[in-house]
Amino acid sequence: MTPIEKLAELFLRFPGIGKRQARRFVYFLLGQPEETRTSLAQAIENLNKEIVSCASCRRFFIGKETQKELCDLCGNGSRAQDVLIVVEKDIDLENIEQSGAYTGRYFVLGGTVPVLGEPKDNELRTKELLELTQNLKPKEIIIALAATPEGEHTANFVRETLSPLQKKLKFKISALGRGLSTGTELEYSDADTIKNALSNRG
Amino acid sequence: MTPIEKLAELFLRFPGIGKRQARRFVYFLLGQPEETRTSLAQAIENLNKEIVSCASCRRFFIGKETQKELCDLCGNGSRAQDVLIVVEKDIDLENIEQSGAYTGRYFVLGGTVPVLGEPKDNELRTKELLELTQNLKPKEIIIALAATPEGEHTANFVRETLSPLQKKLKFKISALGRGLSTGTELEYSDADTIKNALSNRG
Amino acid sequence: MTPIEKLAELFLRFPGIGKRQARRFVYFLLGQPEETRTSLAQAIENLNKEIVSCASCRRFFIGKETQKELCDLCGNGSRAQDVLIVVEKDIDLENIEQSGAYTGRYFVLGGTVPVLGEPKDNELRTKELLELTQNLKPKEIIIALAATPEGEHTANFVRETLSPLQKKLKFKISALGRGLSTGTELEYSDADTIKNALSNRG
Amino acid sequence: MTPIEKLAELFLRFPGIGKRQARRFVYFLLGQPEETRTSLAQAIENLNKEIVSCASCRRFFIGKETQKELCDLCGNGSRAQDVLIVVEKDIDLENIEQSGAYTGRYFVLGGTVPVLGEPKDNELRTKELLELTQNLKPKEIIIALAATPEGEHTANFVRETLSPLQKKLKFKISALGRGLSTGTELEYSDADTIKNALSNRG
Repeated sequence: MTPIEKLAELFLRFPGIGKRQARRFVYFLLGQPEETRTSLAQAIENLNKEIVSCASCRRFFIGKETQKELCDLCGNGSRAQDVLIVVEKDIDLENIEQSGAYTGRYFVLGGTVPVLGEPKDNELRTKELLELTQNLKPKEIIIALAATPEGEHTANFVRETLSPLQKKLKFKISALGRGLSTGTELEYSDADTIKNALSNRG
Repeated sequence: MTPIEKLAELFLRFPGIGKRQARRFVYFLLGQPEETRTSLAQAIENLNKEIVSCASCRRFFIGKETQKELCDLCGNGSRAQDVLIVVEKDIDLENIEQSGAYTGRYFVLGGTVPVLGEPKDNELRTKELLELTQNLKPKEIIIALAATPEGEHTANFVRETLSPLQKKLKFKISALGRGLSTGTELEYSDADTIKNALSNRG
Repeated sequence: MTPIEKLAELFLRFPGIGKRQARRFVYFLLGQPEETRTSLAQAIENLNKEIVSCASCRRFFIGKETQKELCDLCGNGSRAQDVLIVVEKDIDLENIEQSGAYTGRYFVLGGTVPVLGEPKDNELRTKELLELTQNLKPKEIIIALAATPEGEHTANFVRETLSPLQKKLKFKISALGRGLSTGTELEYSDADTIKNALSNRG
Repeated sequence: MTPIEKLAELFLRFPGIGKRQARRFVYFLLGQPEETRTSLAQAIENLNKEIVSCASCRRFFIGKETQKELCDLCGNGSRAQDVLIVVEKDIDLENIEQSGAYTGRYFVLGGTVPVLGEPKDNELRTKELLELTQNLKPKEIIIALAATPEGEHTANFVRETLSPLQKKLKFKISALGRGLSTGTELEYSDADTIKNALSNRG
C-alpha cells in the first residue's frame, strides 16, 4: 500500500466520508505546502499529548500538562450537583451546554446499544456511570439520547443498569421530552411525534 | 397563449412544482391516451360537484349529493366534544386523525399569519372559529400548528382571537408539546429544541 | 374510492410524483376557488379538442380546428429537408429546437426500447419513421437519444429498423456526439465519457 | 485556541468540509484509540518524507527515497511521446489514466485561471509547461480541462501561453470533445451541449 492509499484508508474511517472524498482529501493535502501537512500532523499528535478524559463526566478536555483530573464543567462547584444528564457523546454534551438551558452535571456514555445484538459493556461506560451516580447521589438523572430506535433501546439499557442503584438512592430517572422539534410541520410528522406532542401539550 | 402554455401555467401553481416540471406534466398528458385526459378533467370537475366544506370544522368532504352539512368526524356524536384542535389545513387534520392519538373535534383555520405583514382576516376562518367555540363550549382548545416562526406567530394570533371568548367561557388554550421529534439526534438539535425537550422531560 | 382518492391516484401517474405529493396536489386544489378547478379541468379537456399529432414528425401541436395536418416545423419549406433528427419525445424536440443549432426536420419516436425485454413495436412509431424516411429521402438521419444504456439500445434498434431502407436510399445514419457536457469536471467523469471526449477531441 | 479548535480549523480547509463536519472529525479522532491518531499523524508526515513532484508532469509520486526524478508514467519509454495532455490536477490525470483510453504523456497544470481576475502565474506551472513542451516537442497537446466557464477560461490561457512555442514547433493544440456525457438526457441538456453534440455527431 502506497502512502497515498494508506492515508486515504485512514480518512475513509472518518464519519460521513466515502472512498472518493477520502482520496480527494489526500490529493488536497498533496497540493498544499509542506508546512500545512506538518501543522496537521502536529495538531493530531497534540491531541495525544494534551487531551485527557475527565475523571467524572469522561468527556475529553485539555489538561494533561496541568494534571487536572476534572474538566471545567465537572470542576465547577457552582453548577447544580443534584441533576445528571447522560449523553451519548462529547458533541451532544457541547450542544446541550451551548443551549444555555442546563446548569447541572453531565456524563458521556461513549456509545449506544444496537437494537439487535448485545450491549458491548466494554464500549459503554456503565461502570463509570454507576460509580459517578454512587458518589454524586443526584436527585434526578436525565437520559438525553437520540429519538431513534437505537437511542430508545440504549435509554432502556441505561434505566436497567441504574435500576438497582435507583432503589437504594431513590433518584428520579427522566428522559428528554418528545414532541415537535423546531421546524416540524404537522403535515410531515409521524404518528409517534403527534402522539407525544399531544400528550406533552401545555 | 397556447393550450400547452395555459396548462403549464396552471400546473406551475401546484405546490413544489417549477417551470420545467409543469411543462413535463403537460407533455406527459399529451402522450397519454385521450381517455386519461378525460378522466383527469372529470376527476377535477367532480371535486366541484361532490365536495363540500364541513359546516363545523370546515374541512372538505364528499357530501354535496347527500346534502349532509357535517363531515364524518364532526357528525360523530361518540367523539369527545369538550376538546377542539385547531390545525392549519386539511392534510394536518388527516395526519393527526391517522395517528390515532386524538378523539375530539377539529377546526381547520385555512392558513397562517405571515411573520411580517398583517393577518389577512378574510383568508383565515377566524369568524367561523369563534362561532364554533361559542357553540361547542369546549374545555380545551389545542393549537396544533407548525413549530416554525410562522406557525408560532399564527398560534399567538389564534390565542389573541380567542382571548375575549376565553374570559367568558373559561376554556383552556394549549399547544402541541415541543421536544425531540422522531429521528432527532442531539448533535443536530437547535438550542430551542433542547430547551423544550429539557423542560418537557418526563 | 372517494373523488379525493380517485384524483390522487391520477396525479400519482404523473412523472416524478409520489403518493404524498399526489395527495398534496388534491388538497391544494380543494383549497383553491371553484374557478381554478374549472379552469384546470377545461385546460386539460382542451388538449383533447385542440391538439393533434403532426402527420409527419408526430409531435403534438394545436391544429384540430384549423385542420392542418403538419406542425409549423414540418410545414415550413425553408427548413433543410435533407436531414432528419430522431428524438424520443416532444420535449426533446423542443429542447433541440430551442438550442438554435438545427434547422432540419424532426421525427418523434414516441418511446425507447428497454435494455431487457422486447421492443414493443406498437409503442414506437417505427412504421411511421420508415414511411417518413421513404418520402423525405434525407441524406442523413441523426439519432438524438439519451446517452444512457436504454438510449443506446434504442439507437441500435433504430439503426436496424432503418438498415434495409438505408441500403436502398443510401442515407447516412449518425448519432449525437459524446464527450464532456456542460459542467462536466474530469474528476467526476466516467471512463466512457473520457474515452469519447478523447476520440472526439478537436 | 485550544488543540480541538486548532485541528477543527485545519479540517475546515479540506474540500467540501464545513464547520460542523470539521468539528465532528475532531471528536471522531478524540473517540479513537491513541494509536489511530498516531497512525494518521504519521501517514500525513509520510507524505512529506516520501512523496516528490515528478520533474516532468509535476504530479506527486513516491520516490524521495529512491531518488527517482520521474514518475512511472513519465519514465515509461513505451508510452507515446508525441502527445501531451494538460490537466488541472493529479486526480484528473488518475481518472484519464484509469479510463485506459490514453497512452501518451501528461502535464499537471496545478490550478485554473478564475474567469474574473488575473491568472496567478506563480500558482499555475506555465514555465514548467513551456519547458516540457520545448523538450518533448510533441505533435499534439490536448487540453483536458473542465467543461465549465473557469475550465474554458483556463484553456484559453493555456492556448495563449503555448502560442509562441506552437509557431516555432508546429504542434497541434486540441481540446477534449464536447457532447453528451454518459447519463445525459436530451430533455435536461443545455443549448451548448446540444450544439456541441450536433456538430460532433458521427
